[in-house]
Amino acid sequence: MPKDALKGRDFIAITDVSRRELEALFETADYMQKHVKGGTDALKGRILCTLFFEPSTRTRLSFETAMLRLGGGVTGFADPSASRTVTGESLADTVRMADSYGNAIVLRHRIEGAARLASQVAQVPIINAGDGTQHHPTQTLTDLYTIRKEFGTVDGTSIAILGDLKHTRSASSLCLGLTHFKDVSLFLVSPEQLRTKDEVKDLMKAARLNFVETDDVEKVIPQVDALYVTRVQKERITPEEYEKARGSYIITAKMLKRAKDKMIVMHHLPRIEEIPLEVDYTRHARYFEQAANGLPVRMSLLSHLVE
Amino acid sequence: MPKDALKGRDFIAITDVSRRELEALFETADYMQKHVKGGTDALKGRILCTLFFEPSTRTRLSFETAMLRLGGGVTGFADPSASRTVTGESLADTVRMADSYGNAIVLRHRIEGAARLASQVAQVPIINAGDGTQHHPTQTLTDLYTIRKEFGTVDGTSIAILGDLKHTRSASSLCLGLTHFKDVSLFLVSPEQLRTKDEVKDLMKAARLNFVETDDVEKVIPQVDALYVTRVQKERITPEEYEKARGSYIITAKMLKRAKDKMIVMHHLPRIEEIPLEVDYTRHARYFEQAANGLPVRMSLLSHLVE
Amino acid sequence: MPKDALKGRDFIAITDVSRRELEALFETADYMQKHVKGGTDALKGRILCTLFFEPSTRTRLSFETAMLRLGGGVTGFADPSASRTVTGESLADTVRMADSYGNAIVLRHRIEGAARLASQVAQVPIINAGDGTQHHPTQTLTDLYTIRKEFGTVDGTSIAILGDLKHTRSASSLCLGLTHFKDVSLFLVSPEQLRTKDEVKDLMKAARLNFVETDDVEKVIPQVDALYVTRVQKERITPEEYEKARGSYIITAKMLKRAKDKMIVMHHLPRIEEIPLEVDYTRHARYFEQAANGLPVRMSLLSHLVE
Repeated sequence: MPKDALKGRDFIAITDVSRRELEALFETADYMQKHVKGGTDALKGRILCTLFFEPSTRTRLSFETAMLRLGGGVTGFADPSASRTVTGESLADTVRMADSYGNAIVLRHRIEGAARLASQVAQVPIINAGDGTQHHPTQTLTDLYTIRKEFGTVDGTSIAILGDLKHTRSASSLCLGLTHFKDVSLFLVSPEQLRTKDEVKDLMKAARLNFVETDDVEKVIPQVDALYVTRVQKERITPEEYEKARGSYIITAKMLKRAKDKMIVMHHLPRIEEIPLEVDYTRHARYFEQAANGLPVRMSLLSHLVE
Repeated sequence: MPKDALKGRDFIAITDVSRRELEALFETADYMQKHVKGGTDALKGRILCTLFFEPSTRTRLSFETAMLRLGGGVTGFADPSASRTVTGESLADTVRMADSYGNAIVLRHRIEGAARLASQVAQVPIINAGDGTQHHPTQTLTDLYTIRKEFGTVDGTSIAILGDLKHTRSASSLCLGLTHFKDVSLFLVSPEQLRTKDEVKDLMKAARLNFVETDDVEKVIPQVDALYVTRVQKERITPEEYEKARGSYIITAKMLKRAKDKMIVMHHLPRIEEIPLEVDYTRHARYFEQAANGLPVRMSLLSHLVE
Repeated sequence: MPKDALKGRDFIAITDVSRRELEALFETADYMQKHVKGGTDALKGRILCTLFFEPSTRTRLSFETAMLRLGGGVTGFADPSASRTVTGESLADTVRMADSYGNAIVLRHRIEGAARLASQVAQVPIINAGDGTQHHPTQTLTDLYTIRKEFGTVDGTSIAILGDLKHTRSASSLCLGLTHFKDVSLFLVSPEQLRTKDEVKDLMKAARLNFVETDDVEKVIPQVDALYVTRVQKERITPEEYEKARGSYIITAKMLKRAKDKMIVMHHLPRIEEIPLEVDYTRHARYFEQAANGLPVRMSLLSHLVE
């Protein structure tokens, strides 16, 4: 595939790219690994506008670092409060401004569909750094890249996603990301009230991705290659449910004793209490590597999309 | 005029430069148009300090982008809350710090005269990114450039400025900017209580700029080449005045039907409700182009001022 | 000493470096003076991560400018409020993120020992930009450099540190910094309740640095080469103590009449009322030069530490 196929494109959902394009992105990420501490001049003279209507230090810093490592420049805002004057302004007008200044726009927003709307207004590529509860495609790209690095491929792996599957955009976005691959077994482990949304399940069914919903994490752990942990927030469920869920959704080193030898524990970070520090010292912990993978993956993406 | 005439100078008010210097700035802005998406190395190794004591995302991002496109670097703060530790400090001390670090300082401040004070303290050029209620010279440079681009020259044009002419610094600053040009007809359209300040009117009279004050926007629209819209804020006038003003100071597509064919609608943005979305689709809307012009204009200014 | 001796090292306390290393840092700072307005390409392709859990405009801007002047890039956050999403996260996890993105990390934190903890987690150099109440080694490096520039050496000088010596980290850190030098006479001038902490005094005793504690600033002024002023905050002492202290801890031009001819007044800035503006115009004021010295000193430090 010529690199040009992605040039100038938006990246709003992980399903916006084909399997072949995904593989091209992964291969460029492999190449970028060599440049994560040094940098290149690939995007010299180009500017990335980072519009974070919702703050996210990790995602923003990884994008900024990626752009700087490619020799480009960065401007934008980190936080809606630091851009009070645009709060009354429509999203479209703010995006038009950034469109006239930058060569690409990274957008994060609380509202579902914000990035898609932005892409209809802007000429330059829009990259969705998370919007609403379903899409966070660069996180998913990083997650899939991490699994691929560990097992050679995502095809044929067995994955569990754990926690608040209803509200966590990284979880829904990973579900969608897995539809690109063959023979994946997916376990969706959550309290009853926090199950994956129907629209996401419908898309998985349409793509013939096999998934099982359960609330029994203990039973799932021995069966999977990767355990993707997200947090269950107290305020999202009833106190009784929470007490019941709490024990199951904190992954201890003891629980991991029954895991496969090569099973990896993933997390989009920041974690609070759902993965205790003791797990960091097990052979399963892969969330710090996963976070580090965000850099070459975003370097790859920017180098493909930005003109 | 040799480029050097502006080198090292401050830019506090639009009247700080001569007509010839204005034209030189516009010509360089024309040239910079070619570099707005690519960039040059003109200011490589130079650093711009952005001190935004009052937040302004648009102005800040356009300055940062301009400096980065010229190959320079940027540091500073976007917001007084992000610089809590300097709040107790005098403006002069903060400016002295930036003076010793950067090659030029961009300053925005709520207080009238803040930029002038800064220029008395600093060795490096101070650029006023808006202070008090009268001066916003880089906005005015952009506005004048937009009119010139549309009509070939600002001389001889007929301009209306509409809205809160008392408190809107872009409005007062444009009045001052128009004193540089010949045969301009200026209509100042506002509610009685929000008229242009006497000191601004005195300066226009001294420069023999003809202006008419009115509150009848309907009558003015057919006569002008450019309609510059600003917002009337509810809290600034009495409820009765507001109800009366509201209808007149929201510019609808219908009102524009009686405008000249080539009349342009301008706005310093962000807009809230004073220009409805429907106007975006008329042939008159020029506010997005105006915003985009802020980039080559600021690239021009920085390239002239910074040593 | 080969430059490599500092390469890759952390800089958590001023006592982390030897006297020889200090001198090497000062010599490089002398060299960097030539580049403070132009810049070099020494750290091209390198990225500095600035993690300011406690805001500090001066320190942050001087680090950012230093890195940009060395040809490198900068990312990070200025303020914990701009990084809400990491607040629940452990410091170690945030540092691990920055460790995987940047080539060095600058950290500022309210909590004692935060920088040391970070250095145990990170592979890249950690530079302490102030933590707790004792350490602010880059401020001290700047302070010592300022004294050396004025008097040729720090050895044999007589120094007074004035104000809240208990809580001001720049004061404690300077005490520690002076342990590197010979024949220094140190006067610690403070209200009874705001004396230097015992642990700092113990380290000075161990290093055989002579110091005298007093609350009589008038008596000290004629004896010293440098008067280092810090602020006494009202809320830290009793109202009676404050009223008594207030007069003594505001350094007026009149008080300086009895000073040695070449005595210099220093302050880590920002100052509030402890040094009135009138002092700026005396031959003793050196705090603005001191602030400006922060840039070549930090350029020197970064060029030595970053790989």
